[in-house]
Amino acid sequence: MKTRLPSLLVDIKEGVIDLGWGHPSPRLHPLEAVRAAADRLLSRGDTEPLQYGATQGYGPYLETLAEFLSRQESYGMSVDPRSLFLTAGASQGLDLTCTLFAREGDTVLVEEPTYFVIEGIFRAHHLSVRRVLTDKNGLDVDALEDMLENEGLRPRFIYTIPSYHNPTGTVLPEDRRKRLVELAHRFDFLVLADEVYQMIHFAHVPPKPVISFDSGPDGRTISYGSFSKILSPGLRIGWIQAAPTIVDRFADAAVTFSGGGFNHFASALVKEVIDMGLLDENIGRLRVAYSERADAMDLAIRSHFGGSVDFCKPSGGYYFWLRFPGGLDTVEFLPRAEQQGVSFRPGNAFSESGRFTDFLRLTYTLYEKEELEEGVRRLADVAASFVSG
Amino acid sequence: MKTRLPSLLVDIKEGVIDLGWGHPSPRLHPLEAVRAAADRLLSRGDTEPLQYGATQGYGPYLETLAEFLSRQESYGMSVDPRSLFLTAGASQGLDLTCTLFAREGDTVLVEEPTYFVIEGIFRAHHLSVRRVLTDKNGLDVDALEDMLENEGLRPRFIYTIPSYHNPTGTVLPEDRRKRLVELAHRFDFLVLADEVYQMIHFAHVPPKPVISFDSGPDGRTISYGSFSKILSPGLRIGWIQAAPTIVDRFADAAVTFSGGGFNHFASALVKEVIDMGLLDENIGRLRVAYSERADAMDLAIRSHFGGSVDFCKPSGGYYFWLRFPGGLDTVEFLPRAEQQGVSFRPGNAFSESGRFTDFLRLTYTLYEKEELEEGVRRLADVAASFVSG
Repeated sequence: MKTRLPSLLVDIKEGVIDLGWGHPSPRLHPLEAVRAAADRLLSRGDTEPLQYGATQGYGPYLETLAEFLSRQESYGMSVDPRSLFLTAGASQGLDLTCTLFAREGDTVLVEEPTYFVIEGIFRAHHLSVRRVLTDKNGLDVDALEDMLENEGLRPRFIYTIPSYHNPTGTVLPEDRRKRLVELAHRFDFLVLADEVYQMIHFAHVPPKPVISFDSGPDGRTISYGSFSKILSPGLRIGWIQAAPTIVDRFADAAVTFSGGGFNHFASALVKEVIDMGLLDENIGRLRVAYSERADAMDLAIRSHFGGSVDFCKPSGGYYFWLRFPGGLDTVEFLPRAEQQGVSFRPGNAFSESGRFTDFLRLTYTLYEKEELEEGVRRLADVAASFVSG
Repeated sequence: MKTRLPSLLVDIKEGVIDLGWGHPSPRLHPLEAVRAAADRLLSRGDTEPLQYGATQGYGPYLETLAEFLSRQESYGMSVDPRSLFLTAGASQGLDLTCTLFAREGDTVLVEEPTYFVIEGIFRAHHLSVRRVLTDKNGLDVDALEDMLENEGLRPRFIYTIPSYHNPTGTVLPEDRRKRLVELAHRFDFLVLADEVYQMIHFAHVPPKPVISFDSGPDGRTISYGSFSKILSPGLRIGWIQAAPTIVDRFADAAVTFSGGGFNHFASALVKEVIDMGLLDENIGRLRVAYSERADAMDLAIRSHFGGSVDFCKPSGGYYFWLRFPGGLDTVEFLPRAEQQGVSFRPGNAFSESGRFTDFLRLTYTLYEKEELEEGVRRLADVAASFVSG
């Protein structure tokens, strides 16, 4: 029965340049790398990738991944494979964290604004979400400390995006990373650090991952990494890095044992990609392409909007976070923009508080430079007519 | 850093024929089929399998799967692709079901005995597990009705393995399937039907899946299928079949949207395997091999144990369920058996009630016939000496 069910998550209206989706560009998908890796993996007569995998993850994958991370300039730390756990992507890891480390009704913290789907994931586990302010340097650690010290807040965990924040693009400085870890130890909560953009840096590397400041055996930081932003989201492969006692909680979970390691086969494929040097190549290519796209979007915003929006050019990651100081309501504005052939993610999507109605998020990774330029031009035209009209 | 982390879930002591693991045989892993499918998938210049997938699952996979199921003799029903949802295996689907359809403290039902990991999955979600008796025809629907009618039990759902039950090998007759569905509607609970063995039938097909008796738009049955038993567990691919309103709950979950469809790439690979006719071939080969292995184990048990154990030869699936009527405690017996080079899963693993200490489960899928024969011979020798000693 043919039903025309969709193939992909992305859903773009005909004729619209949709700058709302935080997805990689189809042109940059490393099809040849995956093909070469699959050929090598499946040509040696080894059936292990087809069997149930080890609960912590396929050992050779974990070892290759540890070596790979240890030589990343943006990691700046030696990663022990025993501190890694194979996930089917950061989202799956975060969902499993809720199941294993939180109870219904627990208070958990998110940044405001934050990744627009995370509150939904936590709410599905019936957690009580509180929001912590951010500023141009990311999480406001003073505000967090105040909530802990003076409001008596006792969260189970905080979810944070330290490097190239979604949606703001900010980077949490090293001193804030250290203070966050101190607070986690003092007030006994976990830090869920979504570090999926850590390796997508442009001219400069970001501070080291939060877990590099919390790498002891009693560490309270769980770092979520993913191949979605550096290789391919369709493979659904990522990792957790945490203290061995925390890794054991994930590996010993009944659901992990039941199916064996998450995404065993695809992890064996990713191991080949890394071993063949194709991941390093791919990340290098992405950094160049995304940096050029960020430049193109930056230039387009400056030339088409003039000074009518506030923003900072990101130094890595995927996003521009634009504010209309005149108070334009980006939710009301969205249908008008789509009529004119451009779309975006309105600011209020990034907090269930309903704030940020005068913000919007643009992604520069999905389209080529010329399309980004044209998309921003359309957006500026509609904004001008929307304000004046 | 080399750490010798394990590659696989299976962990067998040197020199032991371990009949405890419900895993397929490495020799039967369809490496060439997966290789041919990967080659075809990655040779046509299509990058869609590498992008974020649609939340319900990759459309072409769902359509191919619906056609495949519709022509299975053991299904005997027309499957609509809109009633399917892509999972990363049955365990992942069951875990997500707990998150989306149950609340902490809810009562849920399992069969006694049941799949030995399922209570752990439910307990991780802080559900309250009650057990329902089974007999030689599977779930005792009279006992269930009594609990519902006379004890006032109001479960959120029941977890059942209708065909080739794990561990008992029983098959739920059609009339019980229908009565189970009636009870689910009358008392407003879901039926989670683990139907992963449905296609592993030998001489005769089992009754149709429970969902075939509950296929209306208000259906309360969720059927869990998997490629783990019919193709390869390492791929982590399965499906849910349910009423469209239930499918929507899975597809609209925040965690599903966050990462896109579960195991998108591997589902595209499985679609190729099906399209190339290689899944039909593989299942045909498995039925012959497993049927022969079941015959070999049956013969070995009869010849080496004589009448000292009670059991029924399974008509499909993976397992023999043996009872020692003399009351041998299989937990105490296990270390002695392993010393003599054979292992199994003791009966009390299959219910957290601690019952079934005089039972054990044997799997015939992981080993070749000669090894099965030798394993059963060792087991009978140890049992004889254990009883006499």
